Amino acid sequence: MLELVEDLTAWRREGRRFAVATVVSVSGSAPRPPGAALAVDDRGEVVGTVSGGCVEGAVYELCREALATGEPVVHRFGWSDDSAFAVGLTCGGAIEVFVHPTPLLPDAAHHLLLARIVTGPPGTPGRTMTVRDGATSGTLGDPALDDEVTACRTTQVVRTVDRRTGAPIEVMVEVAAPPPRLLVFGALDFAAALSDVGNLLGYRVTVCDPRPVFATDRRFPSAEVVVDWPHRYLERTEVDERTAVCVLTHDPKFDIPVLTTALRMPLAYVGAMGSRRTHRERTRLLVEAGVTQAQLARLRSPLGLDLGARTPEETALSIAAEIVAHRHQATGLPLTDLTGPIHACVPPAAPTTALVQSFPSMTC
Amino acid sequence: MLELVEDLTAWRREGRRFAVATVVSVSGSAPRPPGAALAVDDRGEVVGTVSGGCVEGAVYELCREALATGEPVVHRFGWSDDSAFAVGLTCGGAIEVFVHPTPLLPDAAHHLLLARIVTGPPGTPGRTMTVRDGATSGTLGDPALDDEVTACRTTQVVRTVDRRTGAPIEVMVEVAAPPPRLLVFGALDFAAALSDVGNLLGYRVTVCDPRPVFATDRRFPSAEVVVDWPHRYLERTEVDERTAVCVLTHDPKFDIPVLTTALRMPLAYVGAMGSRRTHRERTRLLVEAGVTQAQLARLRSPLGLDLGARTPEETALSIAAEIVAHRHQATGLPLTDLTGPIHACVPPAAPTTALVQSFPSMTC
Repeated sequence: MLELVEDLTAWRREGRRFAVATVVSVSGSAPRPPGAALAVDDRGEVVGTVSGGCVEGAVYELCREALATGEPVVHRFGWSDDSAFAVGLTCGGAIEVFVHPTPLLPDAAHHLLLARIVTGPPGTPGRTMTVRDGATSGTLGDPALDDEVTACRTTQVVRTVDRRTGAPIEVMVEVAAPPPRLLVFGALDFAAALSDVGNLLGYRVTVCDPRPVFATDRRFPSAEVVVDWPHRYLERTEVDERTAVCVLTHDPKFDIPVLTTALRMPLAYVGAMGSRRTHRERTRLLVEAGVTQAQLARLRSPLGLDLGARTPEETALSIAAEIVAHRHQATGLPLTDLTGPIHACVPPAAPTTALVQSFPSMTC
Repeated sequence: MLELVEDLTAWRREGRRFAVATVVSVSGSAPRPPGAALAVDDRGEVVGTVSGGCVEGAVYELCREALATGEPVVHRFGWSDDSAFAVGLTCGGAIEVFVHPTPLLPDAAHHLLLARIVTGPPGTPGRTMTVRDGATSGTLGDPALDDEVTACRTTQVVRTVDRRTGAPIEVMVEVAAPPPRLLVFGALDFAAALSDVGNLLGYRVTVCDPRPVFATDRRFPSAEVVVDWPHRYLERTEVDERTAVCVLTHDPKFDIPVLTTALRMPLAYVGAMGSRRTHRERTRLLVEAGVTQAQLARLRSPLGLDLGARTPEETALSIAAEIVAHRHQATGLPLTDLTGPIHACVPPAAPTTALVQSFPSMTC
């Protein structure tokens, strides 16, 4: 549900009532991971998606019912061999959704843990707890369960039993991380287009260039703009293993110092723009600057997927596509020409006996 | 220059003076095609790009000089073996830019032809003519040349001689087409994300779905929203050989009629979402509906490049990336893992003796 917090907060401000359906488990080739959500308001308006289309209509009706009854409910959708037209996932996967009328709404999604009881003894489904910066609001009704859930670091379903009644309890835990960073070096139009695409993908984008006439807020409305030498900024700013770095200057006086710095950091992606010739010359200069072969092997250069891109927007698309493909270890080839499942990183059906079953986080 | 018309119109409204540098010829691995432009205003602010970075600084200075002198000038940038740090295209290509102080500015870019004399007898460089919907404004000084230029259908440089003096004349002709269309069938969150990416790429996006609760303007702020059955809308709307069609519903009752219609049209791209299983079932139903093997072979299904996409935004990126790669007949593979030139569709150096040398259009 956390992915909808912004939309739902707007609905709440407008005084609308709504029900939210959240995916709590998936198996097979289901298109959306646990935590994916769809909401319907009291006028019948919709935001979000749980399945990429195939069961949206049925989930919509579940939300309307939950709004009418006020009761949370869990529903399973799976493939039915009887008919391709029945309500089911034609993809062959199965998903379980938790439908919650007028759920408690956290006031923002970042740095947040949201836990809700999905199944449990009467009266417990829908109980909610949130943790932000170590501060807990609400309770699931059992301090030990609250503690167990607080320790979760990824989106997952916690399965346990009610201490008093022995009844099984499932808790959907959604963990929201701050947005990953995309650092773009070189204040040119390619950077502006890449900022836009990066924003769409949920990155916090920074454009850095030492030349104040190029690096202006006006040119990069969708990015934070920093006037500094790339390597100096990279050394002083906060990065993590999700950070993507794109060096677009293809000018050795900027490229070599910043790449030398970046290739020694544990970043998700380091790419540099340029032709084959630029690449050869840059590689030579990087080796001269002391970059090892192992570090060099991490450099995506020329960066981007081969889309035949020409315009800044196409080039930005090609770079963003490589960042995503690299993150998911995917090939970049047309799905039409491949075989095998499309969503390779979805785990097999969750064993129901496990006490705690981890799902990949939303960014898997 | 047409790609900057919107920005430059804003500058003009604010009373700023500016010079524009437009790429008039390219050879080798130059990153931007003819027509690409960069502008600098009297305060030193910049929009646009001519080279993706490597000669931006020098072009910036040319624009400042042109603003100071009031004279248009042509300048050539090529690779210099002397130093990787010299002003040149490190990519190994060469570009020629035409720098024009305070050029005549057409009032919008679509459905427009803009012709400017780049080189010619004294007093003629900078002369401008525009044609919109058959109506001509301005003249290049020679009715026969005006007629020749008016007949151009793509962005190109027309090379001829001055009738009176016999001096060579080069005319940069930029032709702007209306934006291509992206038709998205299925009003789900994937469609919203795809609308955003399509807009970035310059598409006019339409989202069509027969279900009014899903197809609302509020959900798709970056698209035109149509409530209708997909195949009915496709039959009645205007399409051309640049139109991309994405069928995201993966529900046979929508998919089969609209794909049967689309695969018989001369469209740029027809893609359909779904798992392998959905694809097999859909293929069977399409054949039953009378779609031929040749028509089926045009269908991109499951649509998109293999990026391991999971979120609606990643999926939209994967679809947009396939549309671009398909247009340019590119592989989708990481450029790092390929060899050969990155910008395969740039023609070799333009022979200077040809009377008319066509360049690929901006969308090449």
